[in-house]
Formats: sequence, structure tokens, C-alpha cells
Amino acid sequence: MTSKYLSPIKQVFKAYQTSSNFMKIAGNCRVISADEGRVKVEFEVTESVTNPMNTLHGGATATLVDIVTTTALMATERGEPGVSVDLTVSYLAPAKLNSTVVFDASVLRMGKTLAYTKCDLFSKEDNKLLATGLHTKAFPTRK
Amino acid sequence: MTSKYLSPIKQVFKAYQTSSNFMKIAGNCRVISADEGRVKVEFEVTESVTNPMNTLHGGATATLVDIVTTTALMATERGEPGVSVDLTVSYLAPAKLNSTVVFDASVLRMGKTLAYTKCDLFSKEDNKLLATGLHTKAFPTRK
Amino acid sequence: MTSKYLSPIKQVFKAYQTSSNFMKIAGNCRVISADEGRVKVEFEVTESVTNPMNTLHGGATATLVDIVTTTALMATERGEPGVSVDLTVSYLAPAKLNSTVVFDASVLRMGKTLAYTKCDLFSKEDNKLLATGLHTKAFPTRK
Amino acid sequence: MTSKYLSPIKQVFKAYQTSSNFMKIAGNCRVISADEGRVKVEFEVTESVTNPMNTLHGGATATLVDIVTTTALMATERGEPGVSVDLTVSYLAPAKLNSTVVFDASVLRMGKTLAYTKCDLFSKEDNKLLATGLHTKAFPTRK
Repeated sequence: MTSKYLSPIKQVFKAYQTSSNFMKIAGNCRVISADEGRVKVEFEVTESVTNPMNTLHGGATATLVDIVTTTALMATERGEPGVSVDLTVSYLAPAKLNSTVVFDASVLRMGKTLAYTKCDLFSKEDNKLLATGLHTKAFPTRK
Repeated sequence: MTSKYLSPIKQVFKAYQTSSNFMKIAGNCRVISADEGRVKVEFEVTESVTNPMNTLHGGATATLVDIVTTTALMATERGEPGVSVDLTVSYLAPAKLNSTVVFDASVLRMGKTLAYTKCDLFSKEDNKLLATGLHTKAFPTRK
Repeated sequence: MTSKYLSPIKQVFKAYQTSSNFMKIAGNCRVISADEGRVKVEFEVTESVTNPMNTLHGGATATLVDIVTTTALMATERGEPGVSVDLTVSYLAPAKLNSTVVFDASVLRMGKTLAYTKCDLFSKEDNKLLATGLHTKAFPTRK
Repeated sequence: MTSKYLSPIKQVFKAYQTSSNFMKIAGNCRVISADEGRVKVEFEVTESVTNPMNTLHGGATATLVDIVTTTALMATERGEPGVSVDLTVSYLAPAKLNSTVVFDASVLRMGKTLAYTKCDLFSKEDNKLLATGLHTKAFPTRK
């Protein structure tokens, strides 16, 4: 059965394609699944996101961890993106140019003012873990 | 007296301007100073690096922390960029569209196989601390 | 079938009981399982490891994440504990006095000079995720 | 001139000496200074806080970073300890048994529901940076 979140999350990533801001980097993501508090996407490592060693730039990895965990927060009843508090990424292995990587993001805990999320990054070819990140977000109270 | 690192580090950032990879984001950085293990740059928050709230995207912040700490590593006798091990960024306050932010990056410790760096991000206008990051890098032994 | 690591890892935790150093805190851990690169233990939250709010102190959580991930490194062919590079812990929910918590630690990647590990901390009673940590370790080359 | 916080912060550390919980580890801290949002203490590395390599245990380092940053939060008008959100420690160099280490903790930003703090750990003998940590805390709204 298809999750009710699949279609709206696909729309979110489609909108990134024509974005004029930094979200544009996620325009190349293909949504694999979107369930309650969990979003998986595939991403091609093109030259534009690499470092001089021809692997996915650590900043691009961090950016995609940030964006995909944020869409996982949007795939909840609350549906709010929140603002970043802390982001930690551990880099286990390089993601090669032209390879496909899978970002698997989950909401670990949704509180009233804080949400904790994580994201694992795998090589699609051999399922090898490339990086893992923790992203804590806040929901500032509106005045 | 001008540091011997100022001119080479300026060249590094100039090369980012015409880069076809992810380093391009740092092409807009203006080098303020480059001393032994320490690099300071200024950066304009243009629309291309913002999030939907019109502030500097957390992924762009992380990317610039990564790049500026790496150039601080290049401003040493060793002069090697290394590879990322872990990156942590804490987001204290938003950096507004069209504002100028200062990235102040330092090498905290240079070891044989590991280097520890940090970067503070300030608002140029009022010197307010916007974010702080820690970036650990490794120097894999060549075979 | 019992893992070949179960008995040696049980010995390691037994030795902590009579330790005169900081490892003593882990003397109360009961080993649930010890497989290749993965160790699970149970731990009672006694008064000696609490904070003034009568929940597990964040420093005690960090200490146990450190120790249990290190024993997961010892449950490998290499069998070396390594030295700490970076430790990050996210605190999702408090662990109450007199409750039992489960530490589930795994080696994510074992490299030549670096190892990446993680640890999740659950409430035994209801399986709720209480904290999650990442611990990066180095194996300095011997001279 | 003596800060108005010096005497109360000294009382806080004195109370740790007779504590029956995990704060006891900080009972050995000698307060050097306590100003608005900043606390410095000295600490002797005794056997009880070491690892099997006879250096300060990474978990003890994390615990003291947690406690000293929390007292820095108490050295503010607000005066509340808050609860831990995220803690990150980078370990630059070992602190030897019987050496004296200085913990220098500061509040980086105090918000309505979140506070960001950091702590640097130095060797007293030669002022060498041994570790650095970031500790984010929350102030849950009272019902």
C-alpha cells in the first residue's frame, strides 16, 4: 500500500528542481519511499557536488543529510520543517563520481519544541555505509 | 607584516570561482587574513545559498565550515587538505539574506594522521556569533 | 549458537567490577549479547549515576556509550580498543532512577587507522529510544 | 574586582563533594574564576577518573565538560541548569595521570528555550589544548 506521504514528499523534491536557493541541490533526488517520519531518496553524484578528489563533497553530504532529514520531519502529522540546532556527520567512506547513493532519513523523536533525526547514506551498488548523520531541529514557538 | 600564506590562500579561493565542482560555493569568499593554521574570510549571503526562510542554509554553513577549515590546514607547513572524518555544526542564530558573514577557521591540533580544526561564523555587522563548527580530518598514509 | 565473543566480553565487563579507574562505572553492566562488532548490555540506573533530576546523568550516558562501543571494537578480529577521536551524544529522553536501560553498540566501519562506532540507548521496559551516540576512534601506529 | 558569581559557583562545586550522585566527580574541581556565563576550574587527574592507558577517561572528560558548561549556565541572570540536548567532544591529546587540567567553559548563546555552550580543556603545565566540547541545552517550558 502506498503511504499518504509519498505524493506530497515527491512534490516537495520536484519543487527543489526549480528553486533559486540552496535547496536546488536536492532537485536531483529521486524519492524511493516516504512513510510516517521516514524518507528515502536516491541521488547521483554528479561533478557539481564533488570535491577535488572526485568524490561527493563533505559539505554536499551534510547539505543532503540536512534536507532529507527535514523532509522526514515534513512526513509527519505536524508537517513542519523546524530550524537547525546541531548537525553532526561522520564520513566513513567516499561516494564516487557517477555512483548512486541512497539517503535514508528518519525522525528518532518528535517532541514539543525539539525533534531528533538521523540519516544514513549508502552506496546503491553494494549497500556499503558511506556516512551517517544526526540532525537536531527546533520548533520555535510562534508569538 | 603580511603572512607568507596570504597570497597562496587568495589563489586557492580565486580558483574556486571557476571551479566546476562543489568548491564553487566558496568562490564568493573574500580572504581577510591567512596566517599559520588560521584563515578568515568574508562571505555575502546571496539568494543561491539561502533556505526557504531567507537565511543562510544550514548545509551551506556546513559546506563553508568544511572548506574554510580545510584551507586553514593548507596554510601550514604540511599544506595538505586531508579527508573529512567528522563534522559538527551548532547553529546559534540565522544569517540573513544580503548580510555579510565572517568565517574564522583555525587548526586546533595537527597530528601525524589526524588534524582537528574549528570555525566560528560571525555577523560582520554586529560581530554576533551565528554558528560554530568542529571538523576533524585524516591524512591517510600513501601506499 | 553462542558467539565466540560472548565469553571474553563477559570477562571484560567482569574485570570492570574490581577496577580502580573510571571503567568501574561499567561493572554493573550485564552482557546480553556479543557478536562480531556488536555488543549489547543492560544497566540499572542507580543513584550513583544520576543527576539532581534523578535521571541518568548525561556524562554517565556518554561514558557508557564510550565504554560499550569500545568493547564492540574488542569483539572483532583486531580486538584493539583504540583511542577516542570524537564523541557525540544526542539526548532524546531521560532514563529514570531504578529503570533498566539497554546499550546496543555496533562497529559501523573498521579501517586501518580509524574505526566508526555507534550506540543506541533504550529503555528496557518499553523499548523507547533514550539517546544515540557516535564514537570515532583511532589506532595510532606503533613505533 | 570579584565577580558576584564567584562565591555561589564555589558553593555549587563544594556541594558536589558530598553528593551521592554522579556530580560527585566534580567535587575535586577548584574554581579559578566565575564570571557572567563563564566558569574556569582546575582538576587533578586521579586514578579514579583514568582509563587503562593511565590518562583521563574520555567519559570523564565528557562528564566534566557537561558539568562545567552547566555551571556556566548557572552563572547567568537566568541561573537555570537546563537539560542536555546534544554533547560533542573532540579529543586532541591525552591528559596524564596526576597532571592538572583546566576546564574553561562559556555560554555562547542564551536563547529562550535553548542555550549553546562550549568548553576547552587545557593542560595546566604547558597550556596545551587537550579537548574541546560543545554542549547544547534546552529549557523545557514549565506547565
